This record gives sequence, structure tokens and C-alpha cells, in this order.
Amino acid sequence: MTYQPRDPDFEKRVRANFLEQRVMNLIGAELMTVEPGVVEIGIRMRDDLTQQDGFMHAGIVTTVLDSACGYAAYTLMPAGSSVLSVEFKVNLLSPATGDWIVARGEVKRAGKLLTVCTADAIAGGKICATMLATMICPESRADKNLHPKT
Amino acid sequence: MTYQPRDPDFEKRVRANFLEQRVMNLIGAELMTVEPGVVEIGIRMRDDLTQQDGFMHAGIVTTVLDSACGYAAYTLMPAGSSVLSVEFKVNLLSPATGDWIVARGEVKRAGKLLTVCTADAIAGGKICATMLATMICPESRADKNLHPKT
Amino acid sequence: MTYQPRDPDFEKRVRANFLEQRVMNLIGAELMTVEPGVVEIGIRMRDDLTQQDGFMHAGIVTTVLDSACGYAAYTLMPAGSSVLSVEFKVNLLSPATGDWIVARGEVKRAGKLLTVCTADAIAGGKICATMLATMICPESRADKNLHPKT
Amino acid sequence: MTYQPRDPDFEKRVRANFLEQRVMNLIGAELMTVEPGVVEIGIRMRDDLTQQDGFMHAGIVTTVLDSACGYAAYTLMPAGSSVLSVEFKVNLLSPATGDWIVARGEVKRAGKLLTVCTADAIAGGKICATMLATMICPESRADKNLHPKT
Repeated sequence: MTYQPRDPDFEKRVRANFLEQRVMNLIGAELMTVEPGVVEIGIRMRDDLTQQDGFMHAGIVTTVLDSACGYAAYTLMPAGSSVLSVEFKVNLLSPATGDWIVARGEVKRAGKLLTVCTADAIAGGKICATMLATMICPESRADKNLHPKT
Repeated sequence: MTYQPRDPDFEKRVRANFLEQRVMNLIGAELMTVEPGVVEIGIRMRDDLTQQDGFMHAGIVTTVLDSACGYAAYTLMPAGSSVLSVEFKVNLLSPATGDWIVARGEVKRAGKLLTVCTADAIAGGKICATMLATMICPESRADKNLHPKT
Repeated sequence: MTYQPRDPDFEKRVRANFLEQRVMNLIGAELMTVEPGVVEIGIRMRDDLTQQDGFMHAGIVTTVLDSACGYAAYTLMPAGSSVLSVEFKVNLLSPATGDWIVARGEVKRAGKLLTVCTADAIAGGKICATMLATMICPESRADKNLHPKT
Repeated sequence: MTYQPRDPDFEKRVRANFLEQRVMNLIGAELMTVEPGVVEIGIRMRDDLTQQDGFMHAGIVTTVLDSACGYAAYTLMPAGSSVLSVEFKVNLLSPATGDWIVARGEVKRAGKLLTVCTADAIAGGKICATMLATMICPESRADKNLHPKT
């Protein structure tokens, strides 16, 4: 699906916002692709990210999937807006192993208020997890409308 | 709901397993309560765990919710078994703020193979997120049965 | 949790709306309890509601769980508003058997725009399914605000 | 993704099983495509399937999405097996309107025990709902293995 971003500076806006997610630095996640409706985030396997069997913890995989979905949605939101996760579901499909995991988030349906995204996490050429998520643009809520956050 | 654990040493088993989740050390999460079907994990707010607005990243909140659910399920599994997350869904209910967040996981239905759990994350006396999760005891799969992992 | 409804006539409003859900008549579902933040819907087991093993189809159980959540949320919404499902997740915990299944929906967090609910379906004294759902009050969207549906 | 079914008679097995889902007859759903890892089910809009606004009830849309996922998984399961839904999540993307809705279920990852599927419901050329689901082949549980259901 092809999307037309409302904000021509969407990539700059997304990349600046990503730098403010301090947890991305802690876990070593890097923002890769930023296109209209699509964002990819990569993360290197590290021993201090593991669960009890030595795989990457499902919560860390979720952290990059959630950010990939959130920023995919954010590429299509207007300048001056913000984005928050409403909810998401993750299925763990196989152990998250390998040196490098890439989470690719894509917009499934973009709305003014709510945007639904999917994301797959690929490790060693294999899907290790998939997400279905709902993101919100809080500035599109009626109670925020009169006093937008600036 | 009251559960009768099959393994009298469940608490010791859970606490030992938690120490092997190296990511818990990275994010500063601590195992608190371990009772039959119930586990609580606490995490201190830190600047390096935040998303773009200064709240704890939803993925980090999910990390402790997931472990709280997994270990709640694991309290009721037999000695020598292991536990893995099949899938989970999280709703973010309010910004994760305050000094300390506690995730309380509870077993909703315990099965030999699959266990369904719920968990709430409480920050400053307020629910900031809730999870509904499915956990698996891999040793109860037919294909693992003849050659159990030891 | 105790909720204070903003509309004193919430019960009348919910019961009138339920009658407009024509599918409830088709599947034989009945609105039982309507309290602030809580709604119960009952459904009688019938052979024409079954899946391949003679249990009630998960989709029919979901239909009553979804309406129980939606109306639980709707009890707390203002007069003149409407309610729609954004998304839900259902875990099937045991076969839906017995003569009568009751779905009890409860509000977990009520917001002006989004309300998060949980619901359990009880069949023969046993939980057969559980839902975690997000409901929306479309009149609280910014783009609907200036021209509210009346 | 291309899948190789283990049972050459998978289509016959799926079609026979569908006829045993009596609720499909009640709601007027028809089994269309049956291919390895893919199943499509169509349903005609009817006034007695509606919610309060005249759209098809989310629970009925879920009923066909769930069956589409379950049968997509079932195409890849062995002869003599059965299939059950473990859990699913549905996002409602737009009102389910139009004369005819088609739910297309696809296998995302096939396992011996658990199979993860996605499904989209298309109404009038537009996605109205999407599902992410976990299906189980109960015969692959250790406790069922020694005494398979025949």
C-alpha cells in the first residue's frame, strides 16, 4: 500500500523523535528505514537483553516492534502532532536468536485519530515475532483540540 | 482463586530462573512476591527507560508484565519444566510515571500445556497498563515428550 | 471499582440500544444486568450456534463478550453519545458447553474517548472465554466534535 | 509463502469439517477458497446480523475471521487431526457494510502444535477488520498423544 504523507518533513520529524526515546540507546536499537507508512528498527543481540534460555527477551523484541509501529504511524501524522500506543498484541513465533533483529512496522489503516499497524521481527531470515497494534494521535481528540500541545 | 502448586519448591525454582533473565538486571527489575499463581515484579523509574515524552517505554512496561505473567504460570508448572510466552496483548491505560512500577501477574486458567494469565502494572496507585497472555510449558508438547529437556 | 454514570438514564439508554442490535435476537442473547460500568448478557446453548465439535462457536461467544464490553463502556458515556468497538482480544479457556452462557463485561478504565473493558464468559460455573477490549465514543473525536451526531 | 500440505486430501477434510459448523448455516457463511495455508469464507450482509447502527456486528465478522484462520491452519494439519482456537485479536478498521464480506485467512507460521494465522475481512473493496490468531492441533499435546482421538 502506498501512502502520501501530509507532512513533507516526516522523516526528519520521526528521526528527531526517535532520538528522544532514551530506552533505544540503552538497548542498542537503531532507526533504519523511514518511509511513508513504513519504519524499520534494528537491534543487535546482546547478552544483557536475554531471558532465561539466552534468547532476546520477548519484552525487548516488543519494545522495537512497538516503536516500529508507532513511528510507521507517525510518518503519516501531521506536523506538530505526537503519537502514543493505545494497545498491541504480539505473537512469539520462534526464539529470537542471531546477531541482529530487524523490526519492520507498516501502517495497515491510517485514520486521523487511530492508526492500525502490523510489524514483523526478523532474526536470521526468519520471523521471530509479529505485532498488531493501535496507535493514537492525541491531538485529534476532541478534548485536546482546543488547546493543542505545542 | 487459589491454586495448589505441583512442585513444593516452586518459589525457589522461580527465583532461580528470574536470575537467569539477564535483561531484568539491565532494566533494574526486581522479583518481589512469588505465590502459587501470583508473581509481582517491581521496576524503578529511570531516565534511560523512557520514550519520547519522558514516560517509561511501553515495551519496558511490557517486559515486566510478560515476566510477571510467565512466572505466575511457572509457579504452577512441574519441577524440571520450563516456560515460554506464546503471545500477549497489552493495553496502555495511562502514562507510566512515578518512581516505582509494580507488575502483578495472576494465573487465570492453568492447563498442563497452556496457561492464561492477566497482569496489571501499577504506577503511583494507578493502573498504567494491563496484559492478557498465553504461556506454554514446552515439555507438555507431544514432540518434546519423548525427549524431555533436562 | 465503583463508577458514577454521567447520564442518570444510562440503563434505559443501554437497554434501548441493545434492542437495535438485531443479531442479538438471531442468536437468542438477552440483556440481563445493567449497572454503572457492568453489563451481563446471557445466551442459551442452541444446536445452530455450534462449531464442528458441538460447542458454541468462538465467534458467537465473542459476539456476546463484545456486546457486554461495549455496553459496560456505554453505561458511563454521556447522553446522546454512541459506542463502537475499536479492537478486542479473546482467549478461549475451555469448551463453551452447558445450557446457558453468561458474559459479564466490566469497565477497567473509562476515558472520555477510549474505554478499556474486560469480560468473562461463564458456562456451567466455569470460565470458557475472556476478553480484553477497547471501546470508543466517536463523539469525542476532534473531527466529530463540531458536528455532533444528535 | 508456499506451504506443502502433509495430507493430500486436505481440501476434502476442510470442506467436510466446515459443514459441521452449524453456525455457518445460521449466519449464511459460505466456504470459498481452500488452498494450502489459505482459506476464504464469504458472508452476505443481512439485516438480522447487524449491530445498532446497521453494520454487521463485530462478533459476526469475528466468527468468519476465526473460521477462516482455523481452516487455513487446518489445511496444513495431518489427516485425522482436529483444530481449535486458542485465542485471537481483532481490529475493526471500518464499518462492515456492503452486500458481501469476504474473510481471507492465511497461515503466518505453521507448527506441529500451534499455528499462527492472520485474516482480513474485505467489504466493498475495503478492509473492515483484521485478525491475528493462534490455533492448536490438540492431538499434538503430550497428554493426548498416547490416546489420540480417532
